[in-house]
Amino acid sequence: MRLFLYTNNMALLQPLIDLAEICFAHGIRHVVISPGSRSAALTLAFSRHDGFKTLVAMDERSAGFVALGMAQQLQVPVVLICTSGSAAYNYAPAITEAFFQQIPLLILTADRPPEWIHQLDGQTIYQSEIYGKHVKKSFTIPSDYTHKDSLWMINRTVNEAVIFTLSKPCGPVHINVPIREPFYPSPEENFTISQNIRIVKKIESNAILSTETWNELLNEWDGFDKILIAGGQHKRSEKLNVSLVRISDELGVAVLGDTISNQAGSDNFITYHDVFLPNSNSDKLRPELLITYGLSFISKSLKQFLQKNAAIEHWHISEDGFLVDTFFSLTRQIPVSAEYFFEQVFEKIDYQHFVQGDDSDNIAAFNQDWIDANRKAKAIVIEELNNLSMLNDLTAVNFLLNELPDGAQLHIANSMPIRYVNALGDSSKHLEIFANRGTSGIDGCVSTAIGAALITSKPVYLLVGDVAFLYDRNGLLIEPLPANLRIIVLNNAGGNIFRMIDGPAALPELENYFETRHSFTAKRTAADSKITYFEASDFNSLKIVMKGFMTNSTIGILEIFTDPVENAKAWKDFKKDIAGQWQNR
Amino acid sequence: MRLFLYTNNMALLQPLIDLAEICFAHGIRHVVISPGSRSAALTLAFSRHDGFKTLVAMDERSAGFVALGMAQQLQVPVVLICTSGSAAYNYAPAITEAFFQQIPLLILTADRPPEWIHQLDGQTIYQSEIYGKHVKKSFTIPSDYTHKDSLWMINRTVNEAVIFTLSKPCGPVHINVPIREPFYPSPEENFTISQNIRIVKKIESNAILSTETWNELLNEWDGFDKILIAGGQHKRSEKLNVSLVRISDELGVAVLGDTISNQAGSDNFITYHDVFLPNSNSDKLRPELLITYGLSFISKSLKQFLQKNAAIEHWHISEDGFLVDTFFSLTRQIPVSAEYFFEQVFEKIDYQHFVQGDDSDNIAAFNQDWIDANRKAKAIVIEELNNLSMLNDLTAVNFLLNELPDGAQLHIANSMPIRYVNALGDSSKHLEIFANRGTSGIDGCVSTAIGAALITSKPVYLLVGDVAFLYDRNGLLIEPLPANLRIIVLNNAGGNIFRMIDGPAALPELENYFETRHSFTAKRTAADSKITYFEASDFNSLKIVMKGFMTNSTIGILEIFTDPVENAKAWKDFKKDIAGQWQNR
Repeated sequence: MRLFLYTNNMALLQPLIDLAEICFAHGIRHVVISPGSRSAALTLAFSRHDGFKTLVAMDERSAGFVALGMAQQLQVPVVLICTSGSAAYNYAPAITEAFFQQIPLLILTADRPPEWIHQLDGQTIYQSEIYGKHVKKSFTIPSDYTHKDSLWMINRTVNEAVIFTLSKPCGPVHINVPIREPFYPSPEENFTISQNIRIVKKIESNAILSTETWNELLNEWDGFDKILIAGGQHKRSEKLNVSLVRISDELGVAVLGDTISNQAGSDNFITYHDVFLPNSNSDKLRPELLITYGLSFISKSLKQFLQKNAAIEHWHISEDGFLVDTFFSLTRQIPVSAEYFFEQVFEKIDYQHFVQGDDSDNIAAFNQDWIDANRKAKAIVIEELNNLSMLNDLTAVNFLLNELPDGAQLHIANSMPIRYVNALGDSSKHLEIFANRGTSGIDGCVSTAIGAALITSKPVYLLVGDVAFLYDRNGLLIEPLPANLRIIVLNNAGGNIFRMIDGPAALPELENYFETRHSFTAKRTAADSKITYFEASDFNSLKIVMKGFMTNSTIGILEIFTDPVENAKAWKDFKKDIAGQWQNR
Repeated sequence: MRLFLYTNNMALLQPLIDLAEICFAHGIRHVVISPGSRSAALTLAFSRHDGFKTLVAMDERSAGFVALGMAQQLQVPVVLICTSGSAAYNYAPAITEAFFQQIPLLILTADRPPEWIHQLDGQTIYQSEIYGKHVKKSFTIPSDYTHKDSLWMINRTVNEAVIFTLSKPCGPVHINVPIREPFYPSPEENFTISQNIRIVKKIESNAILSTETWNELLNEWDGFDKILIAGGQHKRSEKLNVSLVRISDELGVAVLGDTISNQAGSDNFITYHDVFLPNSNSDKLRPELLITYGLSFISKSLKQFLQKNAAIEHWHISEDGFLVDTFFSLTRQIPVSAEYFFEQVFEKIDYQHFVQGDDSDNIAAFNQDWIDANRKAKAIVIEELNNLSMLNDLTAVNFLLNELPDGAQLHIANSMPIRYVNALGDSSKHLEIFANRGTSGIDGCVSTAIGAALITSKPVYLLVGDVAFLYDRNGLLIEPLPANLRIIVLNNAGGNIFRMIDGPAALPELENYFETRHSFTAKRTAADSKITYFEASDFNSLKIVMKGFMTNSTIGILEIFTDPVENAKAWKDFKKDIAGQWQNR
């Protein structure tokens, strides 16, 4: 690389200095940077601006998920900066998760100018549109930073990109930034923001429904006795929970949610559906009107139940406008926020008519059937678990859910952990639940929790299996790691989920091709990152270390060793016992 | 997930069983598999076929680079298998490297059927065309495996995809494979290959030039006194080297190559250009006819020299047909192999006329100018290094290059290691050199070397910096690791390259935003993977451990600790001293 000592190198890259200021004016405050030469001007534009908190992460795959975890908390875009070449592709898993989980990210990838592409030059790939359909929009700004039309476009593009991240549905937006040498300022050079930066703000509007539309919807609502509200993944919202509690408790309408729906506030909420739906009388529980909101559902039992027992009408409440027809029954897409919709439903329902009218008994009866099933399931689950004294993944998760402090965040990795937690019902009542269910990958669970913990002051717990932990262990290369993060690794020596599924469990290829049994532990990785390490392989040791783990003043890893064969047996027995108990009561 | 116990589940997935057989018929023998349920039929189709060696790797990013390293050795496609969702995106960095390095890979990504895309279902993203322009072709086969036209298409597509990986330029080809449940065979089910599989083979043709074209080229050649042949990245080829040696030694034409050109066999080959070109008299060394072959060049000195001192004619020999104009001087693209071209050139040149003719003195004089510069540079470099007794990255690399056994493979990671080796000249004369110079990323250097070592029986050495090592440490999760692999980590506690470049070196942001200083070592990672670990922080300890490291019977890591400030000073002094010596001799 060459030596450049222009007295004012950065004058040539002024639009990139201004780019940072535009981001600041739009409210962006956090930047995750991976080191690079081509991207140096972007790095410096943000790091030399007083208004940003910066974090440096050398592995772009982790960097992407850290930014995702941060933006998940902030609901404001986080900026990602990387150099040219395959660095940009390492962001792709996190960007895809952000796209389907509708989390705002602004990705800035430095690039060679286009004339150098496919000329055998280093770190030069086809970066334009590199993330395909997994960004809301992908811009490539001109490599000429001098012509006034270029400057006009760059200014407009940066404004538009930030606005796009936050317009509904929120999501990742990519700006590919071709940069010519020189890359670095001279040491004495100061950065100055241009006088003539133009900030274009998009006025916020709120989507609401007209009185006529409401009348139409409420007329339909009135026509049904069996109404079920089901929540997919949704950030914790007190406003939404207040409305849902009233709808459930006062109107007597059944309200159901997976753990990632973060429903809380009523004992009438249905949370054990994953356990009781396979055993239930579908005639009684089949809704006539199904109202869903939020993103993905975890419970396969729920999906199969609602697919088989399709509602007559299915309304899906979502500002994104997508026709998501998970249950083969969608009839109305209602493009407003769930907060608005359910608040208005409660206010507009004719309470007297609804609760004391002719149909009120039927409505209450349908809700009661769901509540009864839920209570019965809960009682059986608690009793079952009380009878289990051996430590395995199921009993460990149950123990942990009871121990974690009210109001803490629980991040749950994909594969078995999320299934355990969802089956155990009530976790979202006292914990704020996060999981990468946009694409349900195991590739960024550790880094996402790190990103979250860097933003929130709450205690952040991550529940993760050994494979997902190892996959994303490079998140732990970030320094400093957040002191409020506690990682619980369920180490069952492989991909235990494959032993839970009847298909691979019975095959001779199970251990080598599906579980991929291994003997890795988190202990040395913890030591490498100066993380306090705790371990347990039975309930006694778990109970003893748990307090120290929770009250430790800095980041900790608790590794729980379990036997994969035991785990599979316990999980199968658990479901079988519930089915048996269900019939006997 | 559901329990399926059809007596013959796989009948529904027969085309995937047949797919493996088609691959076998085309000569594919190696498969790298990452575990997944959706991809189970693909996994089983290959693992139950007698003809394949399979390797399981849980992290798809590493898996991709392992496959790349294998295919780099084999020059035959290696199959990659992963499940649906972001797993597929984790292959992207390796696929991009394969694309620009022209290495054949066949990527099989299991997918949801298209009707499930963007329906909030797990592990479902937009997988069609997911690798953009970084695959030679991307197919999505039909999700209907019953209609005869579908079966016709699947059979044809698999044949075409394999053929495409190997047609010039070689490269990665993607087949996206939508798969419906059930995913698994029942335990007693046998796999049978269809009777009516059709194998379509593409006949090999060889590109040659007509007599007329040769006459035209040789006429041009005859018109020039100053001819320089320069090799970019090229696999080691004895045939090519034989021709180049003759051209250099017998015809007296200057032949130059970066370390990755793998030129060997003549002391007249120019290998120290990276060191002497910045100090040289460009009038004497400027070629009239430049002939290049192979892929990328490493030496920035060479690029700048040839760009500034453009040849009158520049022929680029490459079967890929791309107009690669790295030196701003391209006049002819010659779409034949370098082996063919240089063999024919030597045979067709009128030896008497050329070597004893009127111009022969001029030709020899030009070659001698290059050879003189090269010898002078070599003498200075060796003397310089003999005077250095302190261990730093430069002296360590020099020591290692002298110690490594003749005929071993040396894989060199990007960033500083490849620059050190290239500056030190003669490495390719006794070692076979590999480096991921397609995109020059640091993201897969460890895994690529693992892949290579799994294929070759030669000793494989990897020279890698600490950042690239940490980035790709998940390659070491593979079991069993190859016993013939030796990893040398130059641990200078960060991205030392940024301290070598004048731009960032002088900035206050150097340590935090560019070098990203850290205190990680490879020791615990080695212990986790049961790798014998050696360390050295001075020459004495290095000399002592070196023998044990080289003769150790299983995989080893040698970590050499150096000081980043010392390294930067040594590298700058080295170049400065050479420039000084150059003037004085």
